[in-house]
Amino acid sequence: MQTVLSQNSYGKSAVRFAKIIRRPHEHDFKEVAVNIQLEGDFESVYTEGDNRKVLPTDTMKNTVYAHAKTHALDSVEEFGKSLAQYFLQNNPQVSRVQLELAEKLWQRVAVSKADESSTPHPHTFISAGNEKWTSKITRTREQLLVASGIENLLILKTTDSGFENYIKDQYTTLKETNDRILASDVNMQWRYAGADIDFNRSRQTIRQTVLDTFAQHYSYSVQQTIYLLGQAVLEKCPEVLEVHLVMPNKHYIPFDLERFGMENRNEIFVPTDEPFGRIEGTMKRSLR
Amino acid sequence: MQTVLSQNSYGKSAVRFAKIIRRPHEHDFKEVAVNIQLEGDFESVYTEGDNRKVLPTDTMKNTVYAHAKTHALDSVEEFGKSLAQYFLQNNPQVSRVQLELAEKLWQRVAVSKADESSTPHPHTFISAGNEKWTSKITRTREQLLVASGIENLLILKTTDSGFENYIKDQYTTLKETNDRILASDVNMQWRYAGADIDFNRSRQTIRQTVLDTFAQHYSYSVQQTIYLLGQAVLEKCPEVLEVHLVMPNKHYIPFDLERFGMENRNEIFVPTDEPFGRIEGTMKRSLR
Amino acid sequence: MQTVLSQNSYGKSAVRFAKIIRRPHEHDFKEVAVNIQLEGDFESVYTEGDNRKVLPTDTMKNTVYAHAKTHALDSVEEFGKSLAQYFLQNNPQVSRVQLELAEKLWQRVAVSKADESSTPHPHTFISAGNEKWTSKITRTREQLLVASGIENLLILKTTDSGFENYIKDQYTTLKETNDRILASDVNMQWRYAGADIDFNRSRQTIRQTVLDTFAQHYSYSVQQTIYLLGQAVLEKCPEVLEVHLVMPNKHYIPFDLERFGMENRNEIFVPTDEPFGRIEGTMKRSLR
Amino acid sequence: MQTVLSQNSYGKSAVRFAKIIRRPHEHDFKEVAVNIQLEGDFESVYTEGDNRKVLPTDTMKNTVYAHAKTHALDSVEEFGKSLAQYFLQNNPQVSRVQLELAEKLWQRVAVSKADESSTPHPHTFISAGNEKWTSKITRTREQLLVASGIENLLILKTTDSGFENYIKDQYTTLKETNDRILASDVNMQWRYAGADIDFNRSRQTIRQTVLDTFAQHYSYSVQQTIYLLGQAVLEKCPEVLEVHLVMPNKHYIPFDLERFGMENRNEIFVPTDEPFGRIEGTMKRSLR
Repeated sequence: MQTVLSQNSYGKSAVRFAKIIRRPHEHDFKEVAVNIQLEGDFESVYTEGDNRKVLPTDTMKNTVYAHAKTHALDSVEEFGKSLAQYFLQNNPQVSRVQLELAEKLWQRVAVSKADESSTPHPHTFISAGNEKWTSKITRTREQLLVASGIENLLILKTTDSGFENYIKDQYTTLKETNDRILASDVNMQWRYAGADIDFNRSRQTIRQTVLDTFAQHYSYSVQQTIYLLGQAVLEKCPEVLEVHLVMPNKHYIPFDLERFGMENRNEIFVPTDEPFGRIEGTMKRSLR
Repeated sequence: MQTVLSQNSYGKSAVRFAKIIRRPHEHDFKEVAVNIQLEGDFESVYTEGDNRKVLPTDTMKNTVYAHAKTHALDSVEEFGKSLAQYFLQNNPQVSRVQLELAEKLWQRVAVSKADESSTPHPHTFISAGNEKWTSKITRTREQLLVASGIENLLILKTTDSGFENYIKDQYTTLKETNDRILASDVNMQWRYAGADIDFNRSRQTIRQTVLDTFAQHYSYSVQQTIYLLGQAVLEKCPEVLEVHLVMPNKHYIPFDLERFGMENRNEIFVPTDEPFGRIEGTMKRSLR
Repeated sequence: MQTVLSQNSYGKSAVRFAKIIRRPHEHDFKEVAVNIQLEGDFESVYTEGDNRKVLPTDTMKNTVYAHAKTHALDSVEEFGKSLAQYFLQNNPQVSRVQLELAEKLWQRVAVSKADESSTPHPHTFISAGNEKWTSKITRTREQLLVASGIENLLILKTTDSGFENYIKDQYTTLKETNDRILASDVNMQWRYAGADIDFNRSRQTIRQTVLDTFAQHYSYSVQQTIYLLGQAVLEKCPEVLEVHLVMPNKHYIPFDLERFGMENRNEIFVPTDEPFGRIEGTMKRSLR
Repeated sequence: MQTVLSQNSYGKSAVRFAKIIRRPHEHDFKEVAVNIQLEGDFESVYTEGDNRKVLPTDTMKNTVYAHAKTHALDSVEEFGKSLAQYFLQNNPQVSRVQLELAEKLWQRVAVSKADESSTPHPHTFISAGNEKWTSKITRTREQLLVASGIENLLILKTTDSGFENYIKDQYTTLKETNDRILASDVNMQWRYAGADIDFNRSRQTIRQTVLDTFAQHYSYSVQQTIYLLGQAVLEKCPEVLEVHLVMPNKHYIPFDLERFGMENRNEIFVPTDEPFGRIEGTMKRSLR
């Protein structure tokens, strides 16, 4: 018998960097985490312990910081495109670079003015929460693929959502309802038709489309909501080829107050983390 | 030898509930986690296994949900005052109720209108991040103490902060600077002079005062910033007796680009989680 | 334009259950978390909001508990095979069931005897840490695939590991070494040649083989260690078709004591969580 | 009005270090995290931004690593005593040093021998889980206090535990039982009568006493179990002055199978994380 290496890759994960962009009257501030993964002619590293083709992951890390110094950071997509290109150009043994970038969001603090109005401060920021703006760059000698995404977009509607007409069997205990809380920690990713896109503008449009659509329909199920979100994005954004959504159903379970002689008119809920429904779907344009 | 029980308490933690407040044209949505801890005549529970005076923690949990149904939730402070009173009144063996309440913040989603402006949606919400609005209620037969707080207020300034003139010894490697990033995950708590306060209004004033002060001074150290924040709160809010601040120093370390022949003009940083500076202080009014 | 649903699945995640197996003189205790994901004829659920083919995820959850009552839990693999079969048999609209099972490990507590020796207690257990024993069952109308794995096997060697002869470029700062700490939180998964295997015995052999091999070789790189681990497993276990290993390099960085006039002879290290190297490989038998 | 600083402290948290102790035929490996907090003459740092008395937290960090090089690490208590002494002696402005130390546990891997027995490996280790061995050192110019503890000792018994005869009120839904799972993530801390103790030996005795006592009694409540654990420790260990235990009740809730026509004879449970009971008690010797 002989052992064959049928797949391999390696890289550095969780390379976090921050950049201050210093403009005449104010600063911008960006914070990004990068995962790098390389494939290529690395078999002898595994099978023979021969490191001569290994770009150390420590060097990858250093490269990210140097690249952050010398390149603009207008969008994670453009930064990722250029960083992937760097690794490919300088490492002939590498056939494929995959980067995952995630931007942590900071927003400018509004400070009080004498007249009780407020004004954005030039160099003070507050975290915008757990939502992350992501990009996935896949670059080979032949091809460049750019995908973008949003992670941890935590949204909730208190009505205009139901769940009825499903299968009942011996283990069914769930009650049908035409008025429930629908909450999800949306994770979505979309693929672009090209690589020269106004990525920031596209992301803003997609994000707002998701919020608008989520708010403004009656949801028969998380499944149907996923489809409507994907459909709306494809209709609004011709530059998007495909949208993938994963929506955990973050259950808010009505608390049984009837036991205490009270009526719970969809008012009091138990938020639960586990277990959770997990629904996903990918939407693209039909060929016709 | 005999073993003495010198201190004891018990209760239920992480009782999470959500409430929809249904108004004619829109819903409000609140989500709160409660920790309950009781003290009283419980020695025989420990020493003799006699449960006759034990209010089960499961019943405490149920009580929170019932109380959420029957009582307003305008502020965590008012809800907590009333819940603590319930436990005290209905359990003669209890001498002291301590409640910790933490509100998770949701904000109304802004949806697009036909004219490209936006409008708040009546029943759709988006998470406002990790910031929590807290209250700590301590109620005995004789006394009611109300404290409030803010947890995980993650703020950052890109300049107007330095650190110089400190002690140098054999293990000093830190360089002095008059221009650094100052970032902190502020945790603060304040005690009120009374228990009948417009708590929500007070909290908004305190929060904005913290943001304004953090933005608008040159910081010589986290210590000095803590003092200035506390001082500003005490000046703005006569109803506040005392302010306690814990400010981890979330270090953004300049990346050493000089090794690569580049200059890092305070542009590129490594955000780090560990280790972290931890600075705290309590400020109150002088007696004079 | 029309929007097409090109992929979809749904299910329940993090269904946690525990089971006491009551034997004459002692109890066994098992704790398992299950993720269920179904594929099938669900398009109209997404595109038309028609729920008539939906088995609610709440019912999936109930089914797990009922199945845990009526079926043995000798191994997560056998339990998963049977649970997947249940979903397939009772839901004609389902074409593919995928289950991920993860067993949390408890070990019997050793209690003291009068003679200062110790003995396993019949019904008291202590957590065996974060290591999880996993299985992934993929079942269609035509096929049953069983994979098993180990997650979070946190191992470390203080020597017999180096990293040399790698590429040096303009961003290299890492120093070569032939004596470093090698630590990893091993995540591995293997596929079986069949579905009727003594899974527990196989897992024990694989786990011990990984520990033996990790301990007893000089590592030129994480890559090479991955290959050797995979190779050893394939040699020991003919029932295994393929082994996939993901090994984060949990860096222990020598602390620079030279600045203080001290010598760090590989004694004092900074354990770091981020960033981390991430190396993976899949090994199988050659066809010859 | 004037603002007074009524309390302050500062320091470095989460200073993690590892040490290889190189002995002739094998290595020992220790991993420890330290939190340092100083009090003293620091008022002008807060009120005037005068840093001349500030030992930077970065220097504290460096000091830990240097101290780890020059001092033995036989126990976290002895290391902590000596580190606290260092800070006090070299910083006249400091009046009080508080250190929290937590050792992460690694155990030697057992590797296979040719005869199918196994033997401890000289330099390979496996994580012993989340249990931490802690110490808290409080040192002033006048006094040295040493406390030790165990965190995250996750234990469970499948029987010999009940909960009955408690208060019933309008919100009671819990059913009485004389046979339930009792599980807890024990966090305990004890204070010593002196500072010259065989700390490792003492800790081993305390830990085994806790396991023995937890296993070998019928528990009427978590409260009673806490008392028995504390009492047993005080009886076994004359060097211990006081024991404090916090025991979350990690509920395993019997799943309601009766709805499906099945009987749950204490076999199938839902492990839950939230909400959880939280019970604490402090036990010491009576004065007589």
